[in-house]
Amino acid sequence: MKLLRYGAPGQEKPALLDAKGGLRDLSGVIPDLAGKALTSASLAKIKALSPESLPLVSGSPRIGACVGDVHNFIAVGLNFADHAAETGAEIPKEPILFNKAPNCIVGPNDDVIIPKGSTKTDWEVELAIVIGDGGSYIPEDKAMAAIAGFCVCNDVSERAFQIERGGQWAKGKGCPTFGPLGPWLVTTDEVKDIQNLGMWLEVNGERVQNGSTKTMIFGAAYLVHYISQFMRLDAGDVITTGTPPGVGLGFKPPRFLKGGEVVTLGIEGLGEQKQNFVAYKG
Amino acid sequence: MKLLRYGAPGQEKPALLDAKGGLRDLSGVIPDLAGKALTSASLAKIKALSPESLPLVSGSPRIGACVGDVHNFIAVGLNFADHAAETGAEIPKEPILFNKAPNCIVGPNDDVIIPKGSTKTDWEVELAIVIGDGGSYIPEDKAMAAIAGFCVCNDVSERAFQIERGGQWAKGKGCPTFGPLGPWLVTTDEVKDIQNLGMWLEVNGERVQNGSTKTMIFGAAYLVHYISQFMRLDAGDVITTGTPPGVGLGFKPPRFLKGGEVVTLGIEGLGEQKQNFVAYKG
Repeated sequence: MKLLRYGAPGQEKPALLDAKGGLRDLSGVIPDLAGKALTSASLAKIKALSPESLPLVSGSPRIGACVGDVHNFIAVGLNFADHAAETGAEIPKEPILFNKAPNCIVGPNDDVIIPKGSTKTDWEVELAIVIGDGGSYIPEDKAMAAIAGFCVCNDVSERAFQIERGGQWAKGKGCPTFGPLGPWLVTTDEVKDIQNLGMWLEVNGERVQNGSTKTMIFGAAYLVHYISQFMRLDAGDVITTGTPPGVGLGFKPPRFLKGGEVVTLGIEGLGEQKQNFVAYKG
Repeated sequence: MKLLRYGAPGQEKPALLDAKGGLRDLSGVIPDLAGKALTSASLAKIKALSPESLPLVSGSPRIGACVGDVHNFIAVGLNFADHAAETGAEIPKEPILFNKAPNCIVGPNDDVIIPKGSTKTDWEVELAIVIGDGGSYIPEDKAMAAIAGFCVCNDVSERAFQIERGGQWAKGKGCPTFGPLGPWLVTTDEVKDIQNLGMWLEVNGERVQNGSTKTMIFGAAYLVHYISQFMRLDAGDVITTGTPPGVGLGFKPPRFLKGGEVVTLGIEGLGEQKQNFVAYKG
């Protein structure tokens, strides 16, 4: 299934995408695409419904982030060997984990605001994992069953805030609007091989990232297993899993985003995003 | 006011502490001590009530964490010069920020589980800030007005997970039960000088930390101002602000917690906590 949220910011309603590309409202079935509505039991209930039995949404509403009410937005750093190389970092021996503030999450096509004082706002196309049943100490061979599905994430990053302000990365990762998520949450049953999906990103129409989940150092199932050794993963938590090469920081000289630029990105089978980057106005 | 949450884990109800130390149930006034119930408008409404008009809670229920449904649990590292010295780190030029997984939050007297494979579980008595009105780009002189109140936090830390597993600290900070919070949320109007409160921690009755919020490098108001430059602070977000010297990592040789040990801690005017540390049972 392709699940999504539509409507005004903060008032999104859950929906599923039907075979013809129409939105079918799920408000009568689940309160939101969030938390316990993402467990395997809840998703099975939704899957058992006939899409045609659900109200068809009219018009072209705004698409919100495909997960609501996120409590833990975890990010994996340097998870592509060639991206690690372009940033001058060593290839990590085990996953590097940090956090994005969950309230930075926005819809896939919402404006992204370049923060006050930013000179190094950068892009990162990433595969995001949305947790379903979750848990602690999840064995790797049970990890896929703990996942609700996958979506596209632009892990927008301010490199000066991230790297030049004390060593821990959180400062450059959770600025307001730095987490476009969606358009859809694609459930695990609909993804044939999560480690073989093309991923790309363009700035003003110029292709800058061109990769595949094939070259992730640590795959989705391993990451869920690994992270669950250190913290409990709950339904609705999101893990964004690292970016392939081609970020602005890796350009020679580095190239960062300014107000007025447009970023488009996508992952095979998971949909596309388009963001206008906007300068902060105080 | 001293506000708190009582009842079984996951089913806590909001309450306030009356002048005689009795719990007065606030369920009829706010759904939980969480999110928007912590804004200044909501707290003003609670303050206008006569505590005697609220139902007195009978018995001695479990005390839960004094904030529910936390979405962003931010921590400040090395915020006491002498603690930085004991860990061998330089004194930071600006606050170091990282995250604790919000689902590690437990009640002030709940058991703390030493994680599977842990050999370096450590204690840290800390002052935690609970955000009320919050915001982005909060001026320092308006920061206190953005805060709902303060509470005690034991920023339990697994030093091997934190330091020896890739450089970012999140892995050693958010293990399940690593965030005892409470007993009370003490509202800002009840704290005369937040930067002059004694703080202490004992392991099995032996005093190991003995400090004061006076020696914080960055005070509460500055931290709220500073963090709001990098992420939006929302009602119910929690910031734990760093620990004074005396953590196990600073002992020569280092001294870490084992199952069966008991940690007690407190901050002047904010109450006390007591945790039994329990070995993980798989």
